[in-house]
Amino acid sequence: MQGLMMQYPLTTNTILEYGNRVFHHKRIITHLPDGTRRVCTFGDLYRRCKQLANALRHTLGVQPGDVVGTFAWNHGPHVELYYGISGIGAVCHTINVRLSPQQIEYSINHSEDKVIFVDATLVPLLEKIAPLAETVRHYVILNAPADFTTTLEPILHYEELLAEQPDEFEWPELDENTACGMCYTSGTTGLPKGVLYSHRSTYLHAMAIMSPNAGNLSSRDTALLIVPQFHVMAWGYPYVCLLAGANMVLPSSNLQPAALIRILQEEQVTRANGVPTIWLGIYEELKNNPPAEPLALEEYVVGGSALPASLIEAFERDFGIRGVHAWGMTETSPLGTLSRLQPRHESLPPKDQLAVRAKQGIPFPGVEIRIVSDEGTVLPWDGKTMGELQVRGAWTISAYFKTANQESFTDDGWFRTGDVSTIDEAGYMEIKDRTKDLIKSGGEWISSVALESALMAHPRVKEAAVIAIPDQKWIERPLAAVVFHDRRQAATKEELMDFLARDFVSYQIPHDYVFLDEVPKTSVGKFNKKELRRRYAEEELI
Amino acid sequence: MQGLMMQYPLTTNTILEYGNRVFHHKRIITHLPDGTRRVCTFGDLYRRCKQLANALRHTLGVQPGDVVGTFAWNHGPHVELYYGISGIGAVCHTINVRLSPQQIEYSINHSEDKVIFVDATLVPLLEKIAPLAETVRHYVILNAPADFTTTLEPILHYEELLAEQPDEFEWPELDENTACGMCYTSGTTGLPKGVLYSHRSTYLHAMAIMSPNAGNLSSRDTALLIVPQFHVMAWGYPYVCLLAGANMVLPSSNLQPAALIRILQEEQVTRANGVPTIWLGIYEELKNNPPAEPLALEEYVVGGSALPASLIEAFERDFGIRGVHAWGMTETSPLGTLSRLQPRHESLPPKDQLAVRAKQGIPFPGVEIRIVSDEGTVLPWDGKTMGELQVRGAWTISAYFKTANQESFTDDGWFRTGDVSTIDEAGYMEIKDRTKDLIKSGGEWISSVALESALMAHPRVKEAAVIAIPDQKWIERPLAAVVFHDRRQAATKEELMDFLARDFVSYQIPHDYVFLDEVPKTSVGKFNKKELRRRYAEEELI
Repeated sequence: MQGLMMQYPLTTNTILEYGNRVFHHKRIITHLPDGTRRVCTFGDLYRRCKQLANALRHTLGVQPGDVVGTFAWNHGPHVELYYGISGIGAVCHTINVRLSPQQIEYSINHSEDKVIFVDATLVPLLEKIAPLAETVRHYVILNAPADFTTTLEPILHYEELLAEQPDEFEWPELDENTACGMCYTSGTTGLPKGVLYSHRSTYLHAMAIMSPNAGNLSSRDTALLIVPQFHVMAWGYPYVCLLAGANMVLPSSNLQPAALIRILQEEQVTRANGVPTIWLGIYEELKNNPPAEPLALEEYVVGGSALPASLIEAFERDFGIRGVHAWGMTETSPLGTLSRLQPRHESLPPKDQLAVRAKQGIPFPGVEIRIVSDEGTVLPWDGKTMGELQVRGAWTISAYFKTANQESFTDDGWFRTGDVSTIDEAGYMEIKDRTKDLIKSGGEWISSVALESALMAHPRVKEAAVIAIPDQKWIERPLAAVVFHDRRQAATKEELMDFLARDFVSYQIPHDYVFLDEVPKTSVGKFNKKELRRRYAEEELI
Repeated sequence: MQGLMMQYPLTTNTILEYGNRVFHHKRIITHLPDGTRRVCTFGDLYRRCKQLANALRHTLGVQPGDVVGTFAWNHGPHVELYYGISGIGAVCHTINVRLSPQQIEYSINHSEDKVIFVDATLVPLLEKIAPLAETVRHYVILNAPADFTTTLEPILHYEELLAEQPDEFEWPELDENTACGMCYTSGTTGLPKGVLYSHRSTYLHAMAIMSPNAGNLSSRDTALLIVPQFHVMAWGYPYVCLLAGANMVLPSSNLQPAALIRILQEEQVTRANGVPTIWLGIYEELKNNPPAEPLALEEYVVGGSALPASLIEAFERDFGIRGVHAWGMTETSPLGTLSRLQPRHESLPPKDQLAVRAKQGIPFPGVEIRIVSDEGTVLPWDGKTMGELQVRGAWTISAYFKTANQESFTDDGWFRTGDVSTIDEAGYMEIKDRTKDLIKSGGEWISSVALESALMAHPRVKEAAVIAIPDQKWIERPLAAVVFHDRRQAATKEELMDFLARDFVSYQIPHDYVFLDEVPKTSVGKFNKKELRRRYAEEELI
């Protein structure tokens, strides 16, 4: 028997309409790199999204199901693009500006972007790729200065495009399972893979983040979105803020610690999100230049990599700001778990409480986690047993976009994360290792396999194995173990770096090298990365 | 294009599994009327729900889609019934024990209850109705004392029934639109009408209540559910607590102020819900017998009727406990709006802040509200214009159960609440009047139409019109305006009350009567209740 309740699809349009009706005075504040501060209300956002919807449909010819790319930092127009593109039933593909040119080109062609909205400051990067973009019919320039020129064509200017549109638009009735957003994850192999979010998954993810056990956002809050909008939709915060009625502060490319602290102060920010490298930088800057008044910031959510417990502790001790550890992946929208203390932890000594907070935490309602042995046995939640972390839930992928990848899913329908973790008796998950060949540096994935292939393409290199080593600022950096065909005809570190620069952007290129006679091998002849990590990833760097 | 996200149905089983996995140590604490305190964990709940599921399927022969009745106060087994019954795809019909015997009989037969789970203390009431119950095959007795006897048959005892069942049970895969719960609303006409909740609506309602702008519940909280479980599923709190990891405290029939205060103290309750009459009683008791230590209670959600602003103020001033006003109906699951101050109100003088808090508040995400004129025009949100409140959303009914009631819905798909309200520029809705002939007394609906029909069945009564008048304790009470055929052959107030006692339970019977020569009429000859309210509902009572 069916319930007799209204059909009410969970869509981004519902979120936008809600934000406009109930919180239309709330603000979206953008700090542009030239120091300009732009403010628009949720009411303005609503009107501009409707103008954008008209432009997409009528000027740019975007149809439901089309993919529209964005190549941009965090700012008001980028939020408008989120809602405007998905609002008409098209898909907002937030292109990661930090991928290599080859990866960017691949993701544009693979997703079949029909239009790309690009920041004027990022145009030089896109100009190199545009000649290879097969499906793009229009480029629309965001935040262009007066003297702007480009070789991209055909181009339109965002503000001019909007200005000529009416702000009346009837949103189409969308099935909640319609795709609304797309991100490419560069991590797991050489080729980026597309993850296609639905309206429903986006809505449910945002509702879960809003709750007190999770991001704890309300209409009393002002949230700074440091996580780039091209990184898994800024962890869903552009949706959460409209549901919660929280002011949204967007730093564009002002990601230097001093700039972020100035914004935190100026906007009286109470909530923020970011990767560990960001919080390390902010902590150091606050230590070096203590602010005259305490920040309004109450807590920050940190994820993408593990934040050292010592930093969680120091931030709270020195500045009274709570770090909340979270875990997720592009494939999980991203937030899957989050760590807060519960009453059960109150009687623990401080160091044990800190150890709980340094874990990746408990799953959100709507997310299920388990750990599984190599043999496929589901393992106990005892805080000791390690296994591959597997996830299922309302905002976990069921497949990659146009990519068969059955090895990422179990036969019984769970997503295989590639992380190795424990789960304790209280449900707190802790990442222990990674089963896949990945390095996460400053919040960005680097594929060790791709680096190895590139290095082994060098005429003098016989073998190359790349592992992650700990780094105080970037959390992880790649280290390359290289074997030459002939030791007497070795390449230098500098030569190898130059060689890699042809295919990789600078942060992806290893700065650390060890030259060996042979890469250690496993019994089946594969590179034994465990042995390499044992040798070089534990403070034994040259 | 569809998103590539997992299908993950939003069901009560998902909530139960989550509560068990992540918060299995959290507690459900029942205070029984004999003073017994029973504690079970969410882990115990889970195992007992599986035992119950086995009993329902195998011993009681309950099939998916069957309706199973409960006739019970708030306690652990009643929570088990919520999850156990809906878990197998059956429907949990929480029979309102405060309806008249005729209404109870009607709701049992109309919903076709196959089994009724009944509190031993409520058995005497059900024994009178049972001979007329056409579909009930089993009665299962809850919380029975050792010397329990009954004329109900066939009977089983809940604990014995569970004890013989295994605690392994595989939940069926349910479509999220499957019906999971049913309540009858007695208000709108003489006959109660059934509202059939779905798993999806129940889940989404609970997620919304959990959020900081709403009920603000987390794993730090202990919640006292004063709202009866037979009143719109205790406002969804049995679901919210499992999602939030909040301890759940259940007072059974201990609803006297002193008993509730003792429970608040003993269990260190931080959150609670209840109707105004309850909070009035608790306030007075706290004033008369001030507690030695402040209560842990931080805030209470109050709804069902308007709580006077003066009480909101006094509670906070005298005891530091925040009253949060909410509005809803059986037809809206129930919670639709809730009033908290926002930063925009901070600069208001205290009396204006109080006025905001005394409103019914802003809608939850997932709920849309509007006000509409008699002519069908959608009215502005200016805080002054009054119109019929209409609602749509993810947990609003689309139809009554087996009852055509097209007048309750607009042509464009909104539910007509029958309340008259304003909505201010900030989205705060305030109930101003009621378009339907209803009285809400101590949280229960009384139908004025039903009372009028009954009174006019008295041989001496010619006309009878019943209106609501204000009452300090019960918020509203019915007043009957009566015209006799012959003034010289009038009935007394006592005779009329005795006459009504044949069809109504005591709280439904008016204690206030005015005897008139004629009931004032509108231009079309209907009873002019506006005129009666003007005369008698504004402190002019005899």
